[in-house]
Amino acid sequence: MANRIDHVGIAVSDLDAAIATYRRLLGKEPDGIEEVAGQKVRVAFFQVGESRIELVCPTSPDSPVAQSIARRGEGMHHLCLAVDSTDAEVTRLEGEGAKIAVAPTEGAEGCRVAFVHPKAANGVLVELSSR
Amino acid sequence: MANRIDHVGIAVSDLDAAIATYRRLLGKEPDGIEEVAGQKVRVAFFQVGESRIELVCPTSPDSPVAQSIARRGEGMHHLCLAVDSTDAEVTRLEGEGAKIAVAPTEGAEGCRVAFVHPKAANGVLVELSSR
Repeated sequence: MANRIDHVGIAVSDLDAAIATYRRLLGKEPDGIEEVAGQKVRVAFFQVGESRIELVCPTSPDSPVAQSIARRGEGMHHLCLAVDSTDAEVTRLEGEGAKIAVAPTEGAEGCRVAFVHPKAANGVLVELSSR
Repeated sequence: MANRIDHVGIAVSDLDAAIATYRRLLGKEPDGIEEVAGQKVRVAFFQVGESRIELVCPTSPDSPVAQSIARRGEGMHHLCLAVDSTDAEVTRLEGEGAKIAVAPTEGAEGCRVAFVHPKAANGVLVELSSR
């Protein structure tokens, strides 16, 4: 069961420009900027209540996020739900027939993450994350 | 300043099927279903922590959401941020040059809502809402 929205990931093509836009929009400074080498992205995040808004910018044309921007332009890219156990949720969902795009693996900051296929979530790339 | 993510709106073309999908995905029943005649949509919402996930289904081909699905398919449609005062935020954002798509107006449940243009938010249709 999902406990909260962990974050909404927004694909952007120019991280500095996007930070300036969201600094204005959210009325606050970003809470962190980090590079996630495995995904070939740099990420700026803003804490908003119990959730984060993450600006995700590709660092290479072969980043999955670069491919998403090439196909669909900038915009909301994925929705991450915080769960108690990513592995248990994936087991449950697979048992109910949902298609998993990325099996449980280690994510940033020691989180355990997995991705549900957009075809199993009305076009939404859903990430599951537990600490 | 944004206090929390109020909701993430997901455009869907078959509300009953989408409810079944998200009931499974979120591991809980929807918390409500309502019709928003002004937008020509039916909405099912799931409370997840302090936020909601809203499934938004057009009831007419000329609903703005139907047009979005026709152009881009199902998927994340808008991101709603809870603010203290929608009117004050819009005044601030306009003063800083941000393009507003829909000026402050009455939304569902007595909320005061406005929409920032996706061009002013890296492709994201951002709703602002205050009670």
